[in-house]
Amino acid sequence: MSAGRQDSVIVLVSGGLDSCVSCAWARKEWPELHVLHVGYGQRTASRELKAFRDIADYFKVPAGRRLEASIEYLAAIGGSSLTDPSIPIEQADLARERIPNSYVPFRNAHLLSIAVSWAEARGIGNIVIGAVAEDSSGYPDCRPEYYEAFNALVQVGTVRGDVRVHTPLIRMTKAEIVKLGSRLEAPLHLTWSCYSAADEACGVCDSCALRLRGFARAGLRDPLPYRVRPDYG
Amino acid sequence: MSAGRQDSVIVLVSGGLDSCVSCAWARKEWPELHVLHVGYGQRTASRELKAFRDIADYFKVPAGRRLEASIEYLAAIGGSSLTDPSIPIEQADLARERIPNSYVPFRNAHLLSIAVSWAEARGIGNIVIGAVAEDSSGYPDCRPEYYEAFNALVQVGTVRGDVRVHTPLIRMTKAEIVKLGSRLEAPLHLTWSCYSAADEACGVCDSCALRLRGFARAGLRDPLPYRVRPDYG
Repeated sequence: MSAGRQDSVIVLVSGGLDSCVSCAWARKEWPELHVLHVGYGQRTASRELKAFRDIADYFKVPAGRRLEASIEYLAAIGGSSLTDPSIPIEQADLARERIPNSYVPFRNAHLLSIAVSWAEARGIGNIVIGAVAEDSSGYPDCRPEYYEAFNALVQVGTVRGDVRVHTPLIRMTKAEIVKLGSRLEAPLHLTWSCYSAADEACGVCDSCALRLRGFARAGLRDPLPYRVRPDYG
Repeated sequence: MSAGRQDSVIVLVSGGLDSCVSCAWARKEWPELHVLHVGYGQRTASRELKAFRDIADYFKVPAGRRLEASIEYLAAIGGSSLTDPSIPIEQADLARERIPNSYVPFRNAHLLSIAVSWAEARGIGNIVIGAVAEDSSGYPDCRPEYYEAFNALVQVGTVRGDVRVHTPLIRMTKAEIVKLGSRLEAPLHLTWSCYSAADEACGVCDSCALRLRGFARAGLRDPLPYRVRPDYG
């Protein structure tokens, strides 16, 4: 295994707002940008893949630094409305206290493990994931302590222990992320966040609600088309 | 997510000797046995899948408690002779001090993450993996401290934190594993361990060498066919 080079980074790019802003942030920190997209049989998989490719094109990432992986066994495992068509997507309830049914059990460990394997095989020293604690509906794998535990695992579980996972957005609100993206000129018009639709965003799932509220509180207009645009401000 | 039931277990079954013995051990500890096989584009993938199915049949595991997953992106990532046909499998050198080229970067995190997602979705409280520290060629993800770190991650990264990974063989020698398997009447004749061939085991890769030495030191004869059977005792 090659040593982890400190000038290079892999960014996990789902195609959503947070990952797009993470990308814009990471390329300023580390000149050699790699992008990784992981589909997992979720409802909007092909729309998100298109967003990933559009964002990678925008940042001029060469083909050898892009990786598209598929972990569709997550759909076979089920347990989430994102991957099981028999479970309806819940309407947004930003005051909900339980974890919503869109939670995919232990999902981020899969995404990060792919990034770490790629990093170790290529000698890339940094990984960025756009996880957000406050706005993330209570998913356990979006909290800072989860990433501390994951970095401890990477340290003992890789040959050189010199790959590190960064979470630049983890303590930000969605409004702060929108503002950061705007300041970094991130291509927010190329992103996709809706959990349930792929043509026009539904405007009523948790992900749409968090996004629309973030833009509203940042005082900016979301450039995406929406079926309905409730006021979540 | 359901609570992790303490009478149920998922065993990771590659189809090799260690996973077969782990299976025989786990079913005595927890009555409800689930088995998980993960292919990753390795050279002997279809032979290992056959071994998994034969072992699952032997233990009478019903269809709803079996899961076959594929993570072939690991082959695209490369970095290992197991998944990259352009890198030759090294001949055995049991005194080698560096990590052999069969190392697949961060592989076990992928396998375990699939098991944890399945456990969380189904409410299964235990996971067993047949990792072995002493005989495992120095792979970083076969050491006890790796599993301590992984369990810490599972504790913070799941909703209830009540899934636990067990490594019953981790401090055993291959000879002790062969003896345990023999005592538990594990179907060792159904297993496959060779890294490079799928009809007769090659007898000269690391995996064959460790296995043959284990049987020799246990005073038993390996029931598998070998092209050559060097004396590694």
